[in-house]
Amino acid sequence: MVNSLSKVIDRLQERSNTQLAQCLNQSSAPEKLNDAMRYSVVNGGKRIRPILVYLTAEALGADLTLADKPAAALELIHAYSLIHDDLPAMDDDDLRRGKPSCHKQFDEATAILAGDALQALAFQIIVEADKLSATIKVALVSEMARAAGLEGMVAGQVLDLSHENNNIDLEALEYMHRLKTGALITSSVRFGGLVADANETTLALISDYGNALGLAFQIRDDILDATGSDADIGKPAGSDEARGKATYVTVLGLKEARVRLEAQQSLAKEIASRLGPPGTNLQSLTDFVATRNH
Amino acid sequence: MVNSLSKVIDRLQERSNTQLAQCLNQSSAPEKLNDAMRYSVVNGGKRIRPILVYLTAEALGADLTLADKPAAALELIHAYSLIHDDLPAMDDDDLRRGKPSCHKQFDEATAILAGDALQALAFQIIVEADKLSATIKVALVSEMARAAGLEGMVAGQVLDLSHENNNIDLEALEYMHRLKTGALITSSVRFGGLVADANETTLALISDYGNALGLAFQIRDDILDATGSDADIGKPAGSDEARGKATYVTVLGLKEARVRLEAQQSLAKEIASRLGPPGTNLQSLTDFVATRNH
Repeated sequence: MVNSLSKVIDRLQERSNTQLAQCLNQSSAPEKLNDAMRYSVVNGGKRIRPILVYLTAEALGADLTLADKPAAALELIHAYSLIHDDLPAMDDDDLRRGKPSCHKQFDEATAILAGDALQALAFQIIVEADKLSATIKVALVSEMARAAGLEGMVAGQVLDLSHENNNIDLEALEYMHRLKTGALITSSVRFGGLVADANETTLALISDYGNALGLAFQIRDDILDATGSDADIGKPAGSDEARGKATYVTVLGLKEARVRLEAQQSLAKEIASRLGPPGTNLQSLTDFVATRNH
Repeated sequence: MVNSLSKVIDRLQERSNTQLAQCLNQSSAPEKLNDAMRYSVVNGGKRIRPILVYLTAEALGADLTLADKPAAALELIHAYSLIHDDLPAMDDDDLRRGKPSCHKQFDEATAILAGDALQALAFQIIVEADKLSATIKVALVSEMARAAGLEGMVAGQVLDLSHENNNIDLEALEYMHRLKTGALITSSVRFGGLVADANETTLALISDYGNALGLAFQIRDDILDATGSDADIGKPAGSDEARGKATYVTVLGLKEARVRLEAQQSLAKEIASRLGPPGTNLQSLTDFVATRNH
């Protein structure tokens, strides 16, 4: 990773963490619910989605303060999805980021409800942001609802569960990932475009960037699961394969998965380069995502 | 129930059912997810919340078409909450409206995800409604997120679960119900006010109406659970008491619960009467809610 990007990432992670802490600090909710929400949001997390919102907004000339709440909203959606995905009825993961998952630390009911509340809060903080026009807020809510819901992330999780212990081909795998993780990553860059009031051409360009980056992100995830150590990835390595889950590595083999990762990485960088010098950080971030170790 | 109100209710239920079917009919989501969402939304349901949105909008002079999507959105939130409340980790109910609950008909993972998708869809259909200004959409999303989330419905469910097998007093019981069911019922009448572009004074008045109606609704629910037959209420009668759940009947006794129901009923009707002749249907609806048999 280029050293200058490393500093940018640190700064934006901190900015995002501050925003998230603020969002979770204003509530009169029952203590147990608050605790479970904070436990799942405030600890760890690479903040890839907020960073993408910020970097895209910045690349398109928008003030970062416009991106604060939308960026936090996407991270709340991501956090809720991890809580629900870890539940016994779903992926049944006891660990998340090296610590007990929410339902292990609290209990299943609290985990389900913390996820539900995080989703509602995500929509709330967008429309209650004080720096955005009503028109932009409406566009953001529509974008996020589609990416998170029955045509995006939730649909992807349904497909993922239905694929366990089945042999699926590359096309089915990629379709699932485009929904499960890709939709929200593409929304992250589109959020940056929306708060910058970008035109349709620019939105289409950054959507293409987001799609390529999302696939690179997922292929890297699968490679890490197959090759990384427990400590690096915060959950048992090989857990996907152990439960018969199709991944880029099981479908393509490790070598071919790496080839495919590099292709998406190049594509994403090429698209970001079309933004000129302001897109430099988006190019560097692509390398970061495609080569990360956790 | 006054005969004319009965016809109004039939008409608005049908209108709401049409809207809900439309919302659930446009998706490219996996079939199983679509099936689970439709199963939980399209079948049965009194549509109290949509009816409240419509009647309040009508009382305040708004065109009903403005209320269509907001009314459907609240019903989707209600439906998602029932799916999640019924889960084994929560209330563990096998029956809902006399049929297998969502996780019994499908499976737990599908039920969790159907609920998650319904919540996202509820926000989506508000902001994508074609008849409302961006400013009103923003107000509706904020209202619904607060009522549904960590300061409203979800908080109420957390309190409800924490109260099981505990002796709680009337104050704690009422606080829990104001959050768990009251918040969304109050939002229903406020939704009617918001689409009618009502001023703050009118919004405050109808909020008071909603608060009183919400409590009447819940007390009636508890009385029905204690006294109704299985067929009438669509789930085993006495199920609240059997699991040691505090209700108005267990805390106050049946006689005192009825006194309290009548007090809230009178209060709600008195408030609705202040809207003059346009509030007549809201008065009649109060009687319907407070005397219903299922």
